[in-house]
Amino acid sequence: MEKLIVKKLLINYKTLEDFENFLEYGAAELSMKEDLEGSIVENDSESPFYGIYFGDKLVARMSLYQIEAKYDRYFEPAQNYLELWKLEVLEPYQGKGYGQALVDFAKSFNLPIKTNARRRSNDFWSKMGFEPVTYQPERDRGENPYVWYPEGVSEQSAE
Amino acid sequence: MEKLIVKKLLINYKTLEDFENFLEYGAAELSMKEDLEGSIVENDSESPFYGIYFGDKLVARMSLYQIEAKYDRYFEPAQNYLELWKLEVLEPYQGKGYGQALVDFAKSFNLPIKTNARRRSNDFWSKMGFEPVTYQPERDRGENPYVWYPEGVSEQSAE
Repeated sequence: MEKLIVKKLLINYKTLEDFENFLEYGAAELSMKEDLEGSIVENDSESPFYGIYFGDKLVARMSLYQIEAKYDRYFEPAQNYLELWKLEVLEPYQGKGYGQALVDFAKSFNLPIKTNARRRSNDFWSKMGFEPVTYQPERDRGENPYVWYPEGVSEQSAE
Repeated sequence: MEKLIVKKLLINYKTLEDFENFLEYGAAELSMKEDLEGSIVENDSESPFYGIYFGDKLVARMSLYQIEAKYDRYFEPAQNYLELWKLEVLEPYQGKGYGQALVDFAKSFNLPIKTNARRRSNDFWSKMGFEPVTYQPERDRGENPYVWYPEGVSEQSAE
């Protein structure tokens, strides 16, 4: 298979237009749009999103956000980790390795990763080497957390 | 329209079987199942879920969880509020008022409510009297928060 190139997405009108094709469009995207329109952020400033283009069309994306060690309730030892959101591949491009390329990119930081497995995507996350954690209602608040442990990292036990 | 009756769901094998019909099936449901199978919870103990039955079939549900005032980062004045998750109506029963009946039930506690509007459900939440909040990445972490304010409550401003 050809190598899929993951790019850090820049905030500009092209990116915002691309985002409208994704199902998980919400407050984060609207906030970027308002910031750009109100000149609160510069054109082409960096976003927290990464994506893969097919030609000039954005066909897959995810958001990565680094959470500080002091807020870490998932990993042992407690440490900075990545929260991965909004991994989504446009429907006609699914099953071609785009999702895996994004996840591999996230792993390349060699930090633990936590995501919220949506709508029966457990099989995908298991295939990516992620594991479910023991559900804690106060911490997980209805989420379906899956995590990836780099070497030497394990699940943080409840208090 | 006939009055739709909202019931607090009990943890038993019938409920767990009903849950398998919903798209948002994950860690919370699996955890309840394991607790029941391992006799960690009793049969027919209360769950954090509410639902509406059509005959003996569960066709709509939501989870309500009370968050303590000290964790409140959404409402002014800071206070106990309800987090509403996993509101879902089975596809053949959509558009018949089941969703609204559940939301009205949640409002009847007269506490502020916060939810995460999923997959372009903003119109539904607006119709229910909910409003979007100003997106704060550290707090909202990719979510799409919509809130409902009882009288005298307003949005908490960022630090």
